[in-house]
Amino acid sequence: MDQQQEPAPVPVFFLSDSTGISAETMGNALLIQFPELRFERRLIPFIATAQEARRVVDILDAAMEGPVTPLAFTTAATEEVRAVLRTSKCPIIDFFEMHMERVESILGVSGARVAARLHGVGDVKRYNTRMQAIEYAIEHDDGQSLRALDQAEVILVAPSRCGKTPTTMYLALQHGLFVANYPLLDEDLESTDLPRPIAELGERCFGLLATPARLSEVRQQRRPNSRYASLEQCTRELRRADALYRANGIPVINSTTRSVEEMSTQILQALGTRPSRERSRT
Amino acid sequence: MDQQQEPAPVPVFFLSDSTGISAETMGNALLIQFPELRFERRLIPFIATAQEARRVVDILDAAMEGPVTPLAFTTAATEEVRAVLRTSKCPIIDFFEMHMERVESILGVSGARVAARLHGVGDVKRYNTRMQAIEYAIEHDDGQSLRALDQAEVILVAPSRCGKTPTTMYLALQHGLFVANYPLLDEDLESTDLPRPIAELGERCFGLLATPARLSEVRQQRRPNSRYASLEQCTRELRRADALYRANGIPVINSTTRSVEEMSTQILQALGTRPSRERSRT
Repeated sequence: MDQQQEPAPVPVFFLSDSTGISAETMGNALLIQFPELRFERRLIPFIATAQEARRVVDILDAAMEGPVTPLAFTTAATEEVRAVLRTSKCPIIDFFEMHMERVESILGVSGARVAARLHGVGDVKRYNTRMQAIEYAIEHDDGQSLRALDQAEVILVAPSRCGKTPTTMYLALQHGLFVANYPLLDEDLESTDLPRPIAELGERCFGLLATPARLSEVRQQRRPNSRYASLEQCTRELRRADALYRANGIPVINSTTRSVEEMSTQILQALGTRPSRERSRT
Repeated sequence: MDQQQEPAPVPVFFLSDSTGISAETMGNALLIQFPELRFERRLIPFIATAQEARRVVDILDAAMEGPVTPLAFTTAATEEVRAVLRTSKCPIIDFFEMHMERVESILGVSGARVAARLHGVGDVKRYNTRMQAIEYAIEHDDGQSLRALDQAEVILVAPSRCGKTPTTMYLALQHGLFVANYPLLDEDLESTDLPRPIAELGERCFGLLATPARLSEVRQQRRPNSRYASLEQCTRELRRADALYRANGIPVINSTTRSVEEMSTQILQALGTRPSRERSRT
C-alpha cells in the first residue's frame, strides 16, 4: 500500500548450495555501502541439483519483470548448479567463480569445486568443546553460578544490560571459548576493589561500558520508569564501573559503539588468540 | 619438530577494516575446496589507518620470505587502507574491489566505500530482541523451565546430546528467534505420544536425530563406559524418538550429517522465514 509512495526496494537474492551464510555475509558487506537504498532480501540455500537451480532461475527471471533490477549473490561451488544459474537474465555476482581461479593459480592446485560441507557437528571433538563452552556460558551467565569461575578463559564484567550475555554466547558458540560474566551490582560498586568472587581473576576480566543515555534506553524497555532505568542511576553505575576497571587495569570495551561481533573480535585480539579458526562457511 | 617432515602450511591472512568476519567466511569457503592442503590462518581486523596498513604490509612481505607463498584475503572498504595493502608483494584477494564496481553499475549508485559499521549493539530495538531471545534460550535450555513454552517460535526435541543446545543458541543469537528445547527422557519415550508439556505445541517442534555410533561417541566423552553412552541405549533412544516424531508429523533433522549452521538454515526455511536478515558483516 504505502510501498507505492516510496521508491521500490531492490530485490536481493543470496544463493548457495550450502547454507548461504557466506553469500549473505559478503553480499551484505557490499550492500551496507548503499545506506540510501532499501533492499528486499531472500535467501535460497541448499541448491543441490541442476533441477533445483532451474527453479531458482525461474524465480530470478520473474523478479527481472519488476520495476527494479534485482541482484543475486551466489557462492555455489558445484559446476552443474553454477552453469544453470548463469542462464538467468538476472545479474549474478559469483563470489566463488571470480576468486577460485585466482586462489588455484596462487596455490598451484586445483580446487575440488564441490558443495561445502560444514563440519560443525560432524567433528565430535570440536562439537564437544563448543557444547562445553555453551553449557559453561549458560551456567555462569549473569553471576548465576560462581562455581568453577577459575576455569573461565574470559570474564566479562559490567553493570546490567551493557551487553555481557550476547557477547558471552557469541564467544562460546563461534570460538568455543569458556566465558563467564559477572554483573556489577550496587554493592560491588561501593568501592573500586574487584568483587570477592573475581578478586584473584582480574587478568581474565574485560569491562564493558555504555553511554548513560543508551543504557537508560535499553533498561527503559525492560523496566519502564524505574529507578534502575533512570539516567541518574545509569550514569552513576557507569562512572563507578569505569573507576573500578581503571583501578584494576581491566581493559574496557564500549558496547554502545561496538557490535557483539566487534567486541568479541577485540577480546580475541587482546587474548592473543590470533590464529583465526575455521568458522561458518558457505 | 615434526613440522619439518610434512609439507609446510600455507600462511593465510584475513584482513579487514572491521571485524574480518566476512573475509574469514569467504576465504574459508574457498580454502575448504583444498582439503589436501594445510593452512595457517591469521586474522588482522580493525585496520583503520594507512599507518596500520603499512604495518600489515610488513607482516605480509615478511611471510613472502617463507618457503610457501602466502595468501591474503581482504574486505577492507576504505580506499586509503586498500591503496597501502596493494603495495604488498603478497597476492591479495580483494573481495571488496572486484564486486563493488559490479554492484555499483547494477544499482546505478556509487557506494560509500567506508569501513562497515556493524549495528548489532547500536540498534537498541534489535539488541533487545536478540537479548530476549538469548535469555529465553538460556531459561528454556534442556527443559529447565516449562514456563512460557507457548512463547517459543521453535521447540527442538531430541534425546540428550543430539545438538539441541548449540542450535538453539545459534538461532537465538543470529536470528533473534525464540527457541526452547525439550530433552526426550526415557519416560517420554515409553509411548509415541508427545510429552505432556509440549503436547499442544507439536506444530512448532523439530526433532533431532543422530546416528547411534556418533551419539554414543559424544556421550562417551561425557560419561565414559556408562549405560547412557552405550550403543544399545543410544540405538534404542534414537529409534523411539524417530517413532515419536513420525507419529506426530514432526520434521526430522539429522545432526550427524549437518552442522549447527545447516540445521538452523533448514529450520528457518521450514518456518518460511524466507527474507534473510542483515547479519554479521565485515
